[in-house]
Amino acid sequence: METLILSVNDIRKIVQKVGLDMLMDQTIARLSKTFQQFDHNKTTIPPREGFSYENSHTGLIEWMPLLHQQERVIIKVVGYHPNNPQNRQLPTILSTVSAYDATSGHLMGLMDATFLTALRTGAASAVASQLMAKPHSKILGIIGCGAQAVTQLHALTRIFDFEQVLIYDTDPMISNSFAQRVACLNLKNVEIQVTPLAPLVALADVLCTATSVKVGEGPVFQDKSLKPWIHINAIGSDFSGKIEIPKSVLQSSFVCPDFRTQALKEGECQQLEPQDIQLELYQLIKQEEQYRYIRYEKTVFDSTGWALEDQVVMNIFFDYAKELGAGTLVQLESISADTRNPYDFSIPSAINKGVSKIDLSVNSIYSNRQAS
Amino acid sequence: METLILSVNDIRKIVQKVGLDMLMDQTIARLSKTFQQFDHNKTTIPPREGFSYENSHTGLIEWMPLLHQQERVIIKVVGYHPNNPQNRQLPTILSTVSAYDATSGHLMGLMDATFLTALRTGAASAVASQLMAKPHSKILGIIGCGAQAVTQLHALTRIFDFEQVLIYDTDPMISNSFAQRVACLNLKNVEIQVTPLAPLVALADVLCTATSVKVGEGPVFQDKSLKPWIHINAIGSDFSGKIEIPKSVLQSSFVCPDFRTQALKEGECQQLEPQDIQLELYQLIKQEEQYRYIRYEKTVFDSTGWALEDQVVMNIFFDYAKELGAGTLVQLESISADTRNPYDFSIPSAINKGVSKIDLSVNSIYSNRQAS
Repeated sequence: METLILSVNDIRKIVQKVGLDMLMDQTIARLSKTFQQFDHNKTTIPPREGFSYENSHTGLIEWMPLLHQQERVIIKVVGYHPNNPQNRQLPTILSTVSAYDATSGHLMGLMDATFLTALRTGAASAVASQLMAKPHSKILGIIGCGAQAVTQLHALTRIFDFEQVLIYDTDPMISNSFAQRVACLNLKNVEIQVTPLAPLVALADVLCTATSVKVGEGPVFQDKSLKPWIHINAIGSDFSGKIEIPKSVLQSSFVCPDFRTQALKEGECQQLEPQDIQLELYQLIKQEEQYRYIRYEKTVFDSTGWALEDQVVMNIFFDYAKELGAGTLVQLESISADTRNPYDFSIPSAINKGVSKIDLSVNSIYSNRQAS
Repeated sequence: METLILSVNDIRKIVQKVGLDMLMDQTIARLSKTFQQFDHNKTTIPPREGFSYENSHTGLIEWMPLLHQQERVIIKVVGYHPNNPQNRQLPTILSTVSAYDATSGHLMGLMDATFLTALRTGAASAVASQLMAKPHSKILGIIGCGAQAVTQLHALTRIFDFEQVLIYDTDPMISNSFAQRVACLNLKNVEIQVTPLAPLVALADVLCTATSVKVGEGPVFQDKSLKPWIHINAIGSDFSGKIEIPKSVLQSSFVCPDFRTQALKEGECQQLEPQDIQLELYQLIKQEEQYRYIRYEKTVFDSTGWALEDQVVMNIFFDYAKELGAGTLVQLESISADTRNPYDFSIPSAINKGVSKIDLSVNSIYSNRQAS
């Protein structure tokens, strides 16, 4: 009854072995497949809950639970602290994810979800853009050039052959350093260009907004001269009151969230009425053919993050950990040989007795590869 | 930026070093002090939420979050699977608890909460009984002789000099093995006696109910010939519909829950109207003098478990871990030297660059000893 813990070294080992491109391609592919197979009767995903605070340490800590009935409970805990980079040399998002056996309650595995969140947020935009953006889109615009922008660019370039990437950030230091940050992706034939906001918005076929705009200070661009087929991946909204997209753009677009209930609370959909939102991303992918026409219209993917997306990437990492022998098994829970004596585990004589009585085989998280 | 992980070996080391009696005494003392100092303006504790399922694996997995503003978020995840002992040689309750830095989101520590839950549930009954039971109570009755009964007995014998402990379980195998299970406590001058239900209930000065009675099958005893000063610690209720105490007993008693909102949802208080519940345990302890008279009346402590109780025991263990040098530090979160590049941590050149740039000092969980 051990718990598999992947440290950052294990994750680094997996990334270096597999490669970033392969990892992103697999995430996109498994995310698509998991959305296609998603069944509300087998999987329960409540909207995330959390503590948010507006004080000297503005931010929030949230938990995102998911139940695969009779199999797993997954809980991602995610911290969002926009002062982290400046004040602590830490990323805005810090996160871990845990998997529990939904038949016994045992904690099966724990790993970082900071990298995982960046990866799946990129991959979700790729899946959405495949369904909603004009095929052969050539110009990508990115507003907000922080950590999330890196995986947005990476994921989208795995799907589209962009000729130009136009980028903008309110902080020129951040937009100017972007090209250098994505150098590790070895993008070929793509020109990355810092551009003023107005031409960026006017030229983009696909637009990503991934900003830390403050509550009440959005939207982050104006509704002027957008291409009639523009597709927008709105990534940044994750707070009640925080918005990036002008309401008029949402009202004239086909808007699809990854998680409707949550998007209405803290995504761009806060600006809309519930009846304005027709489909969630997993429903859109199931009806891909029927909705092919939206690729030539204005569309918005309202990405607030969905536990199912996290679970897909978590499974990929646990699968690779198995393949590469990465990770550490720790006996974490105090399990007594006599299950009706909570002190038994701590008593030397009982420990000896216990070894022969408890089944010490690892009820491995590896055993479940599931749909995703 | 490491995470302190206490394995079961670390916890065993602490228990063996400190001793069960000292550990229980400290838990009771720090719980009392924490209740006395509790301030709603500084600490937020929402009712627990979770997934419950009634299928071949009946049970639930819940999360119990707590925020100490500008300091810590604590999340205990607890599984309750009553088939565990019989089907899996595992305890009914399996649990872990995590502490996060509420200024950055960093996961500071993780440890078992199975033992911790048993310990604090016992200690909470001791604190409650000190306030509500007749001084010098001589006879303790225990209905339900599983794991929780062990810590109930242990905690209460640290406070009262019982002469007799009368015990009952619907499964004679479980009641008959109880004395042997508590042998490790070295209780002196206490006679433990398996007793039929009716005389047990009639003779008890203090009564603990800690059963796995099924939804709809409670209460677990009848309202007949109770002593007029009886104090009941109702431990078992933790499910909507699960009750142990007859409604008439509740209606004729002073009922005090550890956590009002939760008790109304899943404790004995389900059977009462909100206005019938006057005080929570932390409020009672703050007004101890004023409520001294209830020790001579019928009283019920409705214990559904409160995250503040868990946090007290967690702090005790993390403090001892520091003192004894127990635990393992793991770098879990993928923190890149460039906080705006989520891939940076995985790139060899960046790692080297990072070592000199990131502050690798341990932002230790040890630094916070707080009120508790």
